[in-house]
Amino acid sequence: MKRLYVADIAKDAEVKDFFLVVKKGIYSSKNNTRYASVSLKDKTGAIEARIWDRVDELSACFDRNDIVYVESRARSYQDRLQLNVTDIRKETRVLSAREICEFYPQAGGGLERLKEAYFRITSEIGNVHLARLFEEIKKREEMLDRFFILPASVAVHHMSIGGLLEHSVSVAEMAKYAAAFTGADPDIVTAGSLLHDIGKIDEIVFKSGGFGFSDQGRLLGHITLGIMLLDRLLPAIDGFPDFLADVLKHIILSHHGQAEWGSPKNPMCAEALVVHYIDNLDARIMGVKEHMEAAMEDEKWSQFHRLYESRFYKVPER
Amino acid sequence: MKRLYVADIAKDAEVKDFFLVVKKGIYSSKNNTRYASVSLKDKTGAIEARIWDRVDELSACFDRNDIVYVESRARSYQDRLQLNVTDIRKETRVLSAREICEFYPQAGGGLERLKEAYFRITSEIGNVHLARLFEEIKKREEMLDRFFILPASVAVHHMSIGGLLEHSVSVAEMAKYAAAFTGADPDIVTAGSLLHDIGKIDEIVFKSGGFGFSDQGRLLGHITLGIMLLDRLLPAIDGFPDFLADVLKHIILSHHGQAEWGSPKNPMCAEALVVHYIDNLDARIMGVKEHMEAAMEDEKWSQFHRLYESRFYKVPER
Amino acid sequence: MKRLYVADIAKDAEVKDFFLVVKKGIYSSKNNTRYASVSLKDKTGAIEARIWDRVDELSACFDRNDIVYVESRARSYQDRLQLNVTDIRKETRVLSAREICEFYPQAGGGLERLKEAYFRITSEIGNVHLARLFEEIKKREEMLDRFFILPASVAVHHMSIGGLLEHSVSVAEMAKYAAAFTGADPDIVTAGSLLHDIGKIDEIVFKSGGFGFSDQGRLLGHITLGIMLLDRLLPAIDGFPDFLADVLKHIILSHHGQAEWGSPKNPMCAEALVVHYIDNLDARIMGVKEHMEAAMEDEKWSQFHRLYESRFYKVPER
Amino acid sequence: MKRLYVADIAKDAEVKDFFLVVKKGIYSSKNNTRYASVSLKDKTGAIEARIWDRVDELSACFDRNDIVYVESRARSYQDRLQLNVTDIRKETRVLSAREICEFYPQAGGGLERLKEAYFRITSEIGNVHLARLFEEIKKREEMLDRFFILPASVAVHHMSIGGLLEHSVSVAEMAKYAAAFTGADPDIVTAGSLLHDIGKIDEIVFKSGGFGFSDQGRLLGHITLGIMLLDRLLPAIDGFPDFLADVLKHIILSHHGQAEWGSPKNPMCAEALVVHYIDNLDARIMGVKEHMEAAMEDEKWSQFHRLYESRFYKVPER
Amino acid sequence: MKRLYVADIAKDAEVKDFFLVVKKGIYSSKNNTRYASVSLKDKTGAIEARIWDRVDELSACFDRNDIVYVESRARSYQDRLQLNVTDIRKETRVLSAREICEFYPQAGGGLERLKEAYFRITSEIGNVHLARLFEEIKKREEMLDRFFILPASVAVHHMSIGGLLEHSVSVAEMAKYAAAFTGADPDIVTAGSLLHDIGKIDEIVFKSGGFGFSDQGRLLGHITLGIMLLDRLLPAIDGFPDFLADVLKHIILSHHGQAEWGSPKNPMCAEALVVHYIDNLDARIMGVKEHMEAAMEDEKWSQFHRLYESRFYKVPER
Amino acid sequence: MKRLYVADIAKDAEVKDFFLVVKKGIYSSKNNTRYASVSLKDKTGAIEARIWDRVDELSACFDRNDIVYVESRARSYQDRLQLNVTDIRKETRVLSAREICEFYPQAGGGLERLKEAYFRITSEIGNVHLARLFEEIKKREEMLDRFFILPASVAVHHMSIGGLLEHSVSVAEMAKYAAAFTGADPDIVTAGSLLHDIGKIDEIVFKSGGFGFSDQGRLLGHITLGIMLLDRLLPAIDGFPDFLADVLKHIILSHHGQAEWGSPKNPMCAEALVVHYIDNLDARIMGVKEHMEAAMEDEKWSQFHRLYESRFYKVPER
Repeated sequence: MKRLYVADIAKDAEVKDFFLVVKKGIYSSKNNTRYASVSLKDKTGAIEARIWDRVDELSACFDRNDIVYVESRARSYQDRLQLNVTDIRKETRVLSAREICEFYPQAGGGLERLKEAYFRITSEIGNVHLARLFEEIKKREEMLDRFFILPASVAVHHMSIGGLLEHSVSVAEMAKYAAAFTGADPDIVTAGSLLHDIGKIDEIVFKSGGFGFSDQGRLLGHITLGIMLLDRLLPAIDGFPDFLADVLKHIILSHHGQAEWGSPKNPMCAEALVVHYIDNLDARIMGVKEHMEAAMEDEKWSQFHRLYESRFYKVPER
Repeated sequence: MKRLYVADIAKDAEVKDFFLVVKKGIYSSKNNTRYASVSLKDKTGAIEARIWDRVDELSACFDRNDIVYVESRARSYQDRLQLNVTDIRKETRVLSAREICEFYPQAGGGLERLKEAYFRITSEIGNVHLARLFEEIKKREEMLDRFFILPASVAVHHMSIGGLLEHSVSVAEMAKYAAAFTGADPDIVTAGSLLHDIGKIDEIVFKSGGFGFSDQGRLLGHITLGIMLLDRLLPAIDGFPDFLADVLKHIILSHHGQAEWGSPKNPMCAEALVVHYIDNLDARIMGVKEHMEAAMEDEKWSQFHRLYESRFYKVPER
Repeated sequence: MKRLYVADIAKDAEVKDFFLVVKKGIYSSKNNTRYASVSLKDKTGAIEARIWDRVDELSACFDRNDIVYVESRARSYQDRLQLNVTDIRKETRVLSAREICEFYPQAGGGLERLKEAYFRITSEIGNVHLARLFEEIKKREEMLDRFFILPASVAVHHMSIGGLLEHSVSVAEMAKYAAAFTGADPDIVTAGSLLHDIGKIDEIVFKSGGFGFSDQGRLLGHITLGIMLLDRLLPAIDGFPDFLADVLKHIILSHHGQAEWGSPKNPMCAEALVVHYIDNLDARIMGVKEHMEAAMEDEKWSQFHRLYESRFYKVPER
Repeated sequence: MKRLYVADIAKDAEVKDFFLVVKKGIYSSKNNTRYASVSLKDKTGAIEARIWDRVDELSACFDRNDIVYVESRARSYQDRLQLNVTDIRKETRVLSAREICEFYPQAGGGLERLKEAYFRITSEIGNVHLARLFEEIKKREEMLDRFFILPASVAVHHMSIGGLLEHSVSVAEMAKYAAAFTGADPDIVTAGSLLHDIGKIDEIVFKSGGFGFSDQGRLLGHITLGIMLLDRLLPAIDGFPDFLADVLKHIILSHHGQAEWGSPKNPMCAEALVVHYIDNLDARIMGVKEHMEAAMEDEKWSQFHRLYESRFYKVPER
Repeated sequence: MKRLYVADIAKDAEVKDFFLVVKKGIYSSKNNTRYASVSLKDKTGAIEARIWDRVDELSACFDRNDIVYVESRARSYQDRLQLNVTDIRKETRVLSAREICEFYPQAGGGLERLKEAYFRITSEIGNVHLARLFEEIKKREEMLDRFFILPASVAVHHMSIGGLLEHSVSVAEMAKYAAAFTGADPDIVTAGSLLHDIGKIDEIVFKSGGFGFSDQGRLLGHITLGIMLLDRLLPAIDGFPDFLADVLKHIILSHHGQAEWGSPKNPMCAEALVVHYIDNLDARIMGVKEHMEAAMEDEKWSQFHRLYESRFYKVPER
Repeated sequence: MKRLYVADIAKDAEVKDFFLVVKKGIYSSKNNTRYASVSLKDKTGAIEARIWDRVDELSACFDRNDIVYVESRARSYQDRLQLNVTDIRKETRVLSAREICEFYPQAGGGLERLKEAYFRITSEIGNVHLARLFEEIKKREEMLDRFFILPASVAVHHMSIGGLLEHSVSVAEMAKYAAAFTGADPDIVTAGSLLHDIGKIDEIVFKSGGFGFSDQGRLLGHITLGIMLLDRLLPAIDGFPDFLADVLKHIILSHHGQAEWGSPKNPMCAEALVVHYIDNLDARIMGVKEHMEAAMEDEKWSQFHRLYESRFYKVPER
C-alpha cells in the first residue's frame, strides 16, 4: 500500500501515496488567501501539506485520524519540506493489520521487546491451570495478533501500534511486585493483569481510514466482551477450576473499580484490588504523559485536560 | 420433608416439623419472664411459637429467613393457636426446589397461571430466530424449572415462589404494549423482557435454610451471568443473526439504565429503552406494594422506606 | 400572514413571504466567494435560501428558530429550487396561535386525531369528580386551545404543533394499561397523565419569531405553574375531595421522579409512580427518535447525544 | 387541660396530669430490677418519671415526642423529685393551639417580643403593594396565629413554640442588612424572608400527642404549599403587579438553593439569592446550636451530627 | 509606562501606547474585507481598535486579558473615535503593581474608601490577640500592598483593582452583623472574614500582560497558602493562644463549606459557619452582578451562566 | 504500669492490672443470670473477663478501645482461663508512648524491622536536598518517635503500634518501583511517600484510655498539619529549592486524589499521581485484610463492609 515513506520524500518529488491525517485547519496567508494546512504522518515521521485550490471542497472530504490518499508535489518552504496538494481523498477500504502498521508509531520500546516481555511473564506463571490458559491463548494466533497490534484506546491523541500490549505488560509487572507486598496471589494477579483489557480485541476494529469501535464494542463494551471471550476459551482447558474462572472474570468485571466508572461489581478480593489500582495508575500516567507531549502551555504547565479536569505540571529537572 | 402444615395444626397436637422463620424477637411477660417469640410459616399460613426455656441459647441458633426444625406442642392462647417450643434448630441441609416450595407462598395468581402466560407470550413471537431461541430454552428443563420457581430477589420481605416469573411476564406484557406506541420492535422487546433477569437463575441458589447468593452471583452479578448464559445457548440455534445476539445481550446489559445503577452501558436502542423503563416501573411498584403490605404506620401512610428514601401513601378508596 | 407556501414555489417566482429558519451557516463557493446558506421551512416543506450580498450584515440579524420575512427569487440549482435572497429580516411581532401553525409541522397523526383521542380518553373516566374536572377544563376554551397547539418543549430539533398533546395522550394510554397491571387507580392515572405537563401552557409562549419561555416560566417552571393552574380550577367543581386534589397536585409535583431532576417530592403513591415512569419512557423515546431523525452518523449509529450522553443504535430491519 | 405544672409539683403529691415525653429508656437497678425511666416536660420544666411495674406493657404504649397522661406520685430520690408512675397512656385527642403551648418552651426572647419584631419589620416596608400584602395577612387571624405558634421544624431535638416566627424574623433582619450591601431591593428581600417558610403553616399540624406532618405536607411540601397560599391571597390585593407576584413565588420556590435540596429553580435574582443564603445560615446555625445544647461529648466537642456529617467545636472562652 | 489615556485621545492623534485587551474578534465589512476588531481599555475608559492589514498575523499574537503595545491613529467613525492599528504586540515584561493599576478600574467606591473601611474594622477588634495580629500585618507593608491591589479572582469578566479588598471588607461587615444574631464571637468572625482569602496574595501574580496564577497557586491553592502565611506570621505575636490559631486556620480551611467545593473540613464552629455562608453570598451576588453587567440578553434576562447553571433576572423597577 | 501480662496469667491468680478493652457485651447464662463479657488485651495476647455483680453499673463506666484497670481472679472455664471481675474502671490518665506500647500489637514484622526499612530507604535517596531533609528529620527525635509508634488510623478494628510506619514504608517501596515504570522522579516519589501522612503525628494523640484525635486534628486534618509541619522544617535546610518544597507539599495535599475525598487539588504531576494511587492501593488492601481477619461470615466471604460497601472474597487455596 505504502510506497514512499515520509522519511524518504525528496524536494520536488511527485508524491502519490497514503498517509494518516493528524491535524487539519484552515488559515489565510499574508496576502489574505485561504488555504488548508494538513499534518500527514506515517510510521517514519510527519510532514505538512497545504491545499490552495478547492479548499472547502477538498478539506470537507476527510477528517483527523483518517487515512487519506494524496496527490501532491514536495516543495521547500522556509527550509522545510511541504506537500503542495492537488488532490486528496479518504481511503474507504478497511485496512489489514499489516497495512495499518505502516501509519502508526510503535509503542515504547518496540513491538518485539514487548512481545518478549509478554512471553517471559506468561512463562513465569507457576499455577498449572493459568499456565495452560496462556498456552491455549498462544495457539489462537489471530487473537494474539490482534492483541499485539491494537492501541490501548481509540481517538486519543497518540495512538500507537502495540499500545494495548504495552499497557498490559506494564500493569502485569507492577501488579506482580505489588502482590508480594500485599499478600495477593501473584499468578492470579499476573493473569488478571494480562487479561483485564482482552475484550478490546473485539471492541476496537480497523475501520476505513483507521481505528474505530465495532458495533458490539459500542453495545457491550470491552469488559463484557472480555468475559465472553474468556468464557469461550475455558472449556478447551481440562480441569480448569470453577472458582478460578469466576475470579478471573471478576477481575475483568471489576477492574474499573466502581459502578460509576463502568464496573457493576467492586473489586472483591485482594487480586482484583491490585489489578484495579495498578491499571488506574498506569492508564492515568500514560494519559497525562501523552497530554503533556501534545499540549504544553509553557515549559512547566500543560493546557487544561478536559477529562481529568486539571492542568499538569512538569517538575523542573535541575 | 413437611408432614404437618400450619393450616392443619390442631390444639394440643405435638408438632415436630419444618417451618420458615419470618420474625424473631425477645420480650418479657407481665411477670417479667423473658421469652422468645418466633413467627413460623409454610405455604399454608403462619403461626406464633414461643420459647420459654434456654431462651438465649435456642434463639441464638437461627435467624429470620432460615428454615428450622421445631419440636413443640400447640396450645391455645387468647383464642389463637401457639406453639410451645421445647427444641428448635436450623436446617443445614440444602433444600431441593420441591422442598423449598413447601415454605413460601406462590406469586400472584399462582405458578400455573404464570407459566401459561409465559408460554402464550413466547408462542406469539413472530421473529423466527427469537421463536427458535425460546424453543431451545424450552428444551433445557432444568433451566426453565429454576426460572419458574425462583423469587425475584433475595432477602426482601415477602419472597414468593415464582416471583421472578411473575415479574418477567408482567414486564413482557407492558413492554409489548409500549412497543406499539413507541415504534420499537415488539418481538425483540418481548424476548428482552423475558430474558433481562435470566442470569438470576445462576445468581440465586437454595442455601441451607432458604435462598441465598451463589459465589459467582456475588462475584459477577445476574447481568453478566445472563449474558454468559445466552452466549452459551445461541450456538445451538442455526443462523441466529449476530446483530440480534448483540442486541439481546445489550438489553440485558443495559436494563438497569445507567452505570451508577449497575449497567455499564446506557440503553442505546428503542427496544432497550422500553425494557429498562418498564422493568423499573414494575420492580419499583412491586417493591412499594410489598413495603406497604408489611409496614404501614397508619391507614394512609407507610413507614419510611430506607432504600427508596420515602414514605408511601395509600390513596383513600372513597 | 403566509401567502405562498414552500410546496407552491415555482421556478423564477419572486418570493416575498415569511418562513421559519431551521439551519444557518456560512460557507465559501468553489471560486472562494463567501455566502450564507439558510434552510427555510413552513408547514408544507423546506427550501434552501442563499445570501450572496451583505453576507455578514444580513445573516447577523436572525437566528435558527426565528420566523423571518424574506425577499428573494426562486432559481433552479442542480435540479433543486433555491431562493436567492436580496433581503431578510426577523419578524418582531408576536404571532397568534393560528399564525404560528403555518410554520411548524403537526405532531404525529395530525391534530384532529390527537384531539379525538384526548376527548375519547377523558370521556372514559369513571370517577365523577375527575370527569367533572375535565368538563370544567373543556369550558376553558383558551386554555384548551393552547394545550392543543403547543410543542412538548422549546428549542429541541423538531418542534411540532400538538407535540404536548401527543405526549400527554401517549402517556395516558400507556399509563392506563400499566395501571391495570400494577393495581393503581386507572382514573387517577389517566387524569394525572393528561395534567402532568399542563403548566407548560403558561411556561411556553409565542415570542417574536417563534416559541420561547415566559418570565414566569423561567422563574417558576411548568411544575409549579401546573399546580397553581389546577388550584385555581378546582374551586369551580363542587365537592371535589381534598385528598384527590392533593393527589393530582402530587402527581404533577413528583412526575420528574426525584429532586435532582426537578421534583422536590418523590412519587409517593402507585398512581404517581406509574405516571413518572411512563412519562420518562415516552419523553426519552421521543427525544431519541428525533435525534436519530436529525443526526445519524451512518446507517446504524446516531451521533453522540450531549444530554443523554450516548450514541443510539438503529436495529437492522432484516 | 394542664392543672399541675412541673414547677409546682411538691414532694409526695399525687400527680395526674399531661406531659410531653422527651426521653424514654429501659434500665436495670443495682439489684437487677428492670425499670423504665421517662423524662417528662411542660413549659415550666422537666421531671424524671420511673415505671417499675408492667414495664414492657406500659412503656410500649407511648414514644418520645408524645403527649401522655400520667398517674403517679412524687417522691424524693437523691434530693431530686421523681414521679413514681402507676399508669401512663398516650393522649390520642388532637390538641388545640392553646393546649399545645402548655408543653413546649417558647422561642428565644418569648413570643411577645418576636411578634413585636414581626410587626415592626412589616411596618417598615415602603413598597405599597408589599405593605398591602402584609396588611391583608394581618386580617387572616387564624393564619397568623398558626404562623406565630409553630416550631420551625418537626422532630428536631428542641421544638419551641414560635420557632418558625423566630427564624423568619431573624432571616428578615439579616437579609435586609445584606440587601443594603448587595444592591438587592430591601422591601422584596424583607417580604421574601418573612414568607419563605409560610407554607409550613399547612405542612405542620397538631397531631394526637404533639406536632406532625399533614397529608398535604407530605405530598406537596412547604414550598409548594407556600406558593399556593400566596396565590390564593393575592387576588384580594388590588393592583398587585404580576412581576412582583412571580418574584415572591420565585423566592419561596428557590429558597433551598438548588434542585438536590428541594428547589426546582435556582435563585435567579439578587433578592432570591440573599434570602437563600441567609436562610441557610440561620437554619444551620440554629441546628448546630440545638445539637450542641443537646449532645456534647466533652466541654469542647459535640457528638457527631448525622445530617450535617460533622462534630462541632465550642471555641473556648478563655 | 502609560502616557496617553483613553479619555484623552483626540481625533487624528497618533497613538503609541499600552492598553488592556478586553475583546477580540474577526469580522468582514460590507464590502467583504476581513478585519479584526479589538476593544482596548485603561483605567479611564475603553476604545475600539481595528486591524485591517496582516489581520491573521497581528491578531494571532495577543489574547483577551493581555496588555498590548499599540501603534495606531485615531479616526472618527460614525461619530465615535476608533483606533486604526498599524502594529500591535503583547507586552512580555512583568508589570509592577503601580503599572498594573493603570489598566484596570478600581473596585466599588475606590481604593481609598476601602482601605479606610479595612482600618476602621480592624481598629474595632476588641480581642487583644487578634488586634495584635492585625497590627503585625500592618507592619508587613508589601503583604498589605498586594492585599489592597489584587482582584478577587483571575479571568473573570471585570477584574478590578482592589476587588479582593472590597470582597473581604464586605464579608467582614455582613458577618459581624450576623454574628450578633447567631451568638458567634464577633472578633473571631471579623478576623476570619478579613483573612479567609489572604492566601490569594500568593496565589495570584502579575504576569506578562496581566494577572495570572503562580506555580504554588496552582499546586497548593489559596486556602493552603493562606494557612501557611498565617502560620508564619503568628510566632511574631507573643502569647497568641494555640486554640485561636487553630480556629483562624480552620475558618480559612473550611470557608468553601464542603469537600466537593475545596474545603477538606466542614465549618465546625459558629464562627466558621458565619464566614462560610456570608462569603458564599457575597461572592455569588458579585459574580451574578458582573455577569448581568456584561451579558444581558434583553432588558430583563441575562444570558445563561455556565458555572452557575442559570440565567438571571433583573427585577423591573416599576 | 503493666505488671502482669496476659501471657503470664496463671490459674487462680489474683489479677490487678491494666488492659485494653476490645469487645464488650451483655448476655444471660443458661440459668438466666445476666453478666457482662469483656475481651481484654495487651501486647502478649487476649483473655475473656466476666462481670457477674453490678453488671449495669460496672459495664457502663468503660467502652471498647478504652484502657481499663481490672481487679479480678483467674479461673478456668471449659479449659480456658477467664477473669472473674470484682471491680473495673477506665484509666483517665493520658498514657505515655512507652506505656501505650504495652497494650497494642506491633505492626507486621515488628517495629525494628520497619525502622531499618525506613532508614535504608532514606539512605538511598540521591537528591541532595531531599537527603538533607531526612537528615534534618532524623535530628527531631521526638517527631520521629511519634512517627514510629502511631497506628495508621484511629478506631479501626486492629490498631497496631507502628502501623503508620508500616504503611509509609510499604507505599515508599511500591511507589519507587512504579516510578521506574512511569518515568516519575524516584527520589521525589520516595520522599513524598514517606511524608504523605506525616501530619498524623499531630492529628492523632494519646488520650485517656488509648488513641484519639487532637483538637487541631479535628479542625485542620492531617493533610494541612503535614504541610504546616514541612513548612516549619524546611527553613532549617540551606538552599532547599522552592519548586521542590511546593512539589512535596502538593504531594501531601493531593494524596487523597480528589476534592470529594479531601484533597482540594488533584495530583498534578507524575510523582503525585504515583503516591496517590499506591497510597490508595495499600490503604484499601490493608483495610480489607483487617476486615477479613475480624469479620468473616463463612470460610469464603467476609461480612458486608459499610465504608467500602462490599463483601470480600477469600480466593480458595486449593
